[in-house]
Amino acid sequence: MEETLEHFYNPDGIAVVGASQNPSKAGYQVVRNLTQRDYHGAVYPVNPGADNIDGLKCYPSLSSIENHVSLVLITTPAAQVVGIMQEAADRGDVKAVVVLSAGFSETKVPENAAMEKKLLEIARGAKIRVLGPNCTGVIDTATGLDTTIEPTVAQNRGGISVFSQSGALGASILCFMDDQPTPLGFNKWTHSGNTCDIDVLDALNYYGNDPSTKNILIYSEAINKGREFIEAAQRISPQKAILVLKVGRTELGIKAAYSHTGSLAGVDQVYEAAFRKVGALRMAGLEDMIDTAKALEMQPLPKGNRICILTEAGGPGSMAMDEIGAFPMIKLAEISAAGQQRLKEVVPPISLICQPMGYIDITAAAMEEHHTEALKCVLAEDGVDGVILLSVPPTFLSPESLARSLALAARDSKKPVLTCLLAGKWVREARKILEEARLPTFDTADRAARTMINLVKRQQYLSSLGGEVRI
Amino acid sequence: MEETLEHFYNPDGIAVVGASQNPSKAGYQVVRNLTQRDYHGAVYPVNPGADNIDGLKCYPSLSSIENHVSLVLITTPAAQVVGIMQEAADRGDVKAVVVLSAGFSETKVPENAAMEKKLLEIARGAKIRVLGPNCTGVIDTATGLDTTIEPTVAQNRGGISVFSQSGALGASILCFMDDQPTPLGFNKWTHSGNTCDIDVLDALNYYGNDPSTKNILIYSEAINKGREFIEAAQRISPQKAILVLKVGRTELGIKAAYSHTGSLAGVDQVYEAAFRKVGALRMAGLEDMIDTAKALEMQPLPKGNRICILTEAGGPGSMAMDEIGAFPMIKLAEISAAGQQRLKEVVPPISLICQPMGYIDITAAAMEEHHTEALKCVLAEDGVDGVILLSVPPTFLSPESLARSLALAARDSKKPVLTCLLAGKWVREARKILEEARLPTFDTADRAARTMINLVKRQQYLSSLGGEVRI
Repeated sequence: MEETLEHFYNPDGIAVVGASQNPSKAGYQVVRNLTQRDYHGAVYPVNPGADNIDGLKCYPSLSSIENHVSLVLITTPAAQVVGIMQEAADRGDVKAVVVLSAGFSETKVPENAAMEKKLLEIARGAKIRVLGPNCTGVIDTATGLDTTIEPTVAQNRGGISVFSQSGALGASILCFMDDQPTPLGFNKWTHSGNTCDIDVLDALNYYGNDPSTKNILIYSEAINKGREFIEAAQRISPQKAILVLKVGRTELGIKAAYSHTGSLAGVDQVYEAAFRKVGALRMAGLEDMIDTAKALEMQPLPKGNRICILTEAGGPGSMAMDEIGAFPMIKLAEISAAGQQRLKEVVPPISLICQPMGYIDITAAAMEEHHTEALKCVLAEDGVDGVILLSVPPTFLSPESLARSLALAARDSKKPVLTCLLAGKWVREARKILEEARLPTFDTADRAARTMINLVKRQQYLSSLGGEVRI
Repeated sequence: MEETLEHFYNPDGIAVVGASQNPSKAGYQVVRNLTQRDYHGAVYPVNPGADNIDGLKCYPSLSSIENHVSLVLITTPAAQVVGIMQEAADRGDVKAVVVLSAGFSETKVPENAAMEKKLLEIARGAKIRVLGPNCTGVIDTATGLDTTIEPTVAQNRGGISVFSQSGALGASILCFMDDQPTPLGFNKWTHSGNTCDIDVLDALNYYGNDPSTKNILIYSEAINKGREFIEAAQRISPQKAILVLKVGRTELGIKAAYSHTGSLAGVDQVYEAAFRKVGALRMAGLEDMIDTAKALEMQPLPKGNRICILTEAGGPGSMAMDEIGAFPMIKLAEISAAGQQRLKEVVPPISLICQPMGYIDITAAAMEEHHTEALKCVLAEDGVDGVILLSVPPTFLSPESLARSLALAARDSKKPVLTCLLAGKWVREARKILEEARLPTFDTADRAARTMINLVKRQQYLSSLGGEVRI
């Protein structure tokens, strides 16, 4: 069996079996995404009833394509898929097949499940790897390849690669990433659907070896090859953060996952222990996942667990402190006596400096320079490993101008700065400015705090390994 | 002491002491908010150095205003406030004072704290109620009154009244409410700042008696008069939901709250028990609070705890199930055999109906009419008390058209329907359409589920009271 998934992301010739001229068909959408976006490789539509589709010569059958084909996308009705797989096997050059067609084991109808088993048998015999059935395949922002039927996926480039067992949730992840104040890019995206062959373990291994993947997001309902997953994660985790959104925390979640993909979500404590062992970060939800991915993409990790909360407002400050306080592994930063003196000189006189230690409230009297000077001051402190900066920009401040100044103040910092400007649409442009300067912004103070907790968890995992690791 | 807070929201003549012609001064912003927005009552600026401000005759002193004044807003430097309070007391007609000025007990300087004590003494002697110091006062969308300095607060009318001890967080709450797909209105808003006199208990009592306040949001760092708060909440809670965001869950949160307002946040378990006893809903954060307020504003409560999850996508469905599963008080709905048969007729053949019972996955094959017919079907079931509807609108569907159809399908339902269309900006317009039809939308499936849990908690509290209560 072909071990690498390379041909899914970087194929040498793509055939689309079931290509269509009808815009309401998946076979049309797939060809359109391959031809009208950024992909520049060879594409061969297959449809016995058409001469050409979207300007491309159309072939009557897969076997009639005279050029090299390493990836086949199948969008035909389910009943035809086994035959097409046999054609692919017979060609000899096909290494990878994405079965977009639905109507297999997910229907829980025995005959349909048998077809899925059959197509996998043929593929295995020919050393072909299969993604699906009932999946939308892959997107690769490096090559511009997009096998999905989604017309709306923005191909913003970034370092995060995504694997999702659920197509809808996988699509939502991309929508949410694109819908940040500044679109959060991604590297590769893979949806495995029924997961007859390629699964979360394959994707993890591939992403782990892929030089352009910096961090890995996984949505999974079950991880069947537990031991192998743990071994792979242990190997990859020192280099790349693995963020896991795994349902099945409760009995009902387990039942829903089984209903969805037939996954046996399993005992949650076992997963929890395994994730902790391998340093994978378990995400509380979609928002936690995107927040954490954004911070990892934009900022360095803290070098330790000493976090400074610098706030312009006591309410949001208290909410961030409440979150941090629930994780004894996090310490509030130590600000030196000299640092406190310096702070006193640069913030409004009524500010509350280090009450308690590591917590600084510059109050609503804070102007732009109070925010920025205080930030520079705490970033310069040896006892500070990371900063959560919170502000409900006071009436007299321009949020955009504040954002520009904060971006300057944090520039070149080797310590993570996570920001929350808390004023809905009045800070939308300011958040964009911050994120364009690679300072991640969060919707609420508690989400900024939870994200910092995730960064510290990652740092502590890396520290626990000792030796040379990426920070 | 004047018991009612009526003069803060519906005064008979407002004097603004410290009114200014300088746009960078709070005294300018306050006059502008009183004159250029919706408020139509009498406003008397006081400033010995000006003849007129913003077109209004300006008075040299508070005592020189010949007309009736029941509310005084003070924006002068702190040192002048005690003298102005004495003038207010001497007038005899003043019932309410908002001290916007800062520089009192929050500075933790003994002389400043003494000034606060002194101004309160004078006020008490003259039966004047005081809001502040160091606060921005009130907004009332019924009268259009806005004593704050915020230029951006949209006065959308609604049934929710807000009390916040933190001005910034109080402002954020309004920003977030305004920043929903359809702006979420409010009724009254009150910020107590240093809280020398009027506190959360006063606001709770006032909102409790106010016919136009339907539900109550509270952000508080401490509740000092515990017994009285419990009594008031017990009286009000059967008629109006009380949503409490109370920091101090952890040691660090308690310290931050003390730093912020000198509040002794106290042992969290005591608060938790008290809130449970009186049926107040404790909010996990700002987003939970806005989500729940929106659902209460737009939808009826469930009549029981049997919730149906109707999803187009297994991933989000599993995530909602995971949330619901953590609350044993929630049951999945019972769908009758006839209902299941009817569902089978109206949804795509590969749908998963009641696997498990009460959970329906209509799959990505679902078109618009599958969504709407399934929704009508489950709403008609006796065993369904509320519906969580989830969809990542499939590629071939128009989210806007889907939203319009769902709104029609849920129209006149006496059961709550909470929706989540999970696709970032691609469903923004669709969410607006749903919310204009009073179907609340949520950013993620788990947030929709948590909101339903809050509705069920409220329903169960009301049921526990027996007798006649608002549903």
